[in-house]
Amino acid sequence: MDWQGPYIAVDWGTTNRRAWRIGADGAVADSCADDRGIRTVPEHGFAAEAEALRARLGDLPMLLGGMIGSDRGWRNVPYVPCPADARALAAGLCRIDARTAIVPGVAQPDPASPEVMRGEEVQIIGALARGALAPGALVCCPGTHAKWVRLEEGRIARFATWMTGEVFALISRHSILAPLLAGETVPGAGFAAGVEAAADGDPLGHLFALRAGALIACPRADAPGYASGLLIGAEVRAALARFGSEPPTLIGRPDLCALYAAALTQVLGPAAPSATVIDGEAAFRAGIGAIIREVA
Amino acid sequence: MDWQGPYIAVDWGTTNRRAWRIGADGAVADSCADDRGIRTVPEHGFAAEAEALRARLGDLPMLLGGMIGSDRGWRNVPYVPCPADARALAAGLCRIDARTAIVPGVAQPDPASPEVMRGEEVQIIGALARGALAPGALVCCPGTHAKWVRLEEGRIARFATWMTGEVFALISRHSILAPLLAGETVPGAGFAAGVEAAADGDPLGHLFALRAGALIACPRADAPGYASGLLIGAEVRAALARFGSEPPTLIGRPDLCALYAAALTQVLGPAAPSATVIDGEAAFRAGIGAIIREVA
Repeated sequence: MDWQGPYIAVDWGTTNRRAWRIGADGAVADSCADDRGIRTVPEHGFAAEAEALRARLGDLPMLLGGMIGSDRGWRNVPYVPCPADARALAAGLCRIDARTAIVPGVAQPDPASPEVMRGEEVQIIGALARGALAPGALVCCPGTHAKWVRLEEGRIARFATWMTGEVFALISRHSILAPLLAGETVPGAGFAAGVEAAADGDPLGHLFALRAGALIACPRADAPGYASGLLIGAEVRAALARFGSEPPTLIGRPDLCALYAAALTQVLGPAAPSATVIDGEAAFRAGIGAIIREVA
Repeated sequence: MDWQGPYIAVDWGTTNRRAWRIGADGAVADSCADDRGIRTVPEHGFAAEAEALRARLGDLPMLLGGMIGSDRGWRNVPYVPCPADARALAAGLCRIDARTAIVPGVAQPDPASPEVMRGEEVQIIGALARGALAPGALVCCPGTHAKWVRLEEGRIARFATWMTGEVFALISRHSILAPLLAGETVPGAGFAAGVEAAADGDPLGHLFALRAGALIACPRADAPGYASGLLIGAEVRAALARFGSEPPTLIGRPDLCALYAAALTQVLGPAAPSATVIDGEAAFRAGIGAIIREVA
């Protein structure tokens, strides 16, 4: 098994997939992104999908992370328990064949607070490898299932998940509020008002006012921003209460990270340092590289 | 227009419909219930539906309440503003013809806290007419959009809505937790654990642990009860903080009221008086009767 030289890194999620060819110099030589998430691939279709990726990006070793290692993915790869670092992830790789492997997720096997992640661990390892995280940093990875992660001695020590993104998507698509929440979500005045309203710890108690206001001719400006601010504001306050009231480093999609950064500034006050934002794709690539260095 | 003598009372909601023939003695003489909620009726189909109800229950005057008076119903009946009582609702009736009318909803036209209800006002007026509510009572009507209502001098004075039922339904049907939440929701140990966990004001921060626990072989018993307890526990605490920490009178479906009563006992402690429960259908019929007495 030869992981020296160029390789393909794949972030294969539930609904989307991104892949990069990394050259011998460690730089991105080519890439592709599509909506062939694991949900769209039939049970025995993953080998063919991987070969199609090689046909597109090069006939190279391939290391995959994300939901591709879940019970609905190519293989159900056992989780590595906390505390976890690059070496532990490398030791837990699921080898599909001599030049194809899947990174394991990380589990917090605490019966009082069970947690799992798949994908964020690669981003965090990558940010650590790039020197962008202190060994005891607090990290937040916004997304469908937002993760807040406490590092200890450069390892993923404990974490918790908020279903903020999924609940927001459900409300936006399927609830009685859906017609009001069709627009884009940006960190403006509506978002700030939602973050503020959530200070009472009752985000779901403020949602219906969006519909009532629209019905009785006092609609709220920027309803999508307000609803998003309610949910993210509640998450940020609860997570800071659980993990310590320091601004986390944000790793993820830049648009989502901008919302979280705005909420953090609002909740922690202007005197607190701003949250650092790390692009999730770059962090993922760096994490794959760090894991490959452990096995190469 | 003659509202003396027997009549038909109709509670016509978004997804369901119940109708009763009330005899000259005020007792239920006949009834029917089906899933012909307003969502299933085409825009100009309501007159024919009402005639079909008459063909089934008797050729009688008919008074309707609920979402039938909304922008998706038969007529978009203007809301009566708070404070509202039976007389105000009677004055705001929308007369379809000489023997068919729709009860208006109630609005709280406060730009800082806009609220609307359609249907619960009939139940509350009915409970008042039956002498089951003090003139300054706190009322909770559990449901898709749960209402907490403060009465003042026997009138609906102010209220607030929690989307608890709708959010629970969305999570149960569409979220990643759906396979875990398929069972019935009862007020047992799982429900109590959810109410307890929600004491930190962060119900959405505890949901994902249901999935994580199932994935790493420490599943929580009674996941539906736990999820329901999280959301209802958060609602009950927030509503008591907003409206005063006395047990409300519960008006609604007996199974839902039982969950709320259990959460209230848990949150307020065993020394607090138990919440009184009033059957929502009986309260609705009494409310229609009270409004008819105002116009007869």
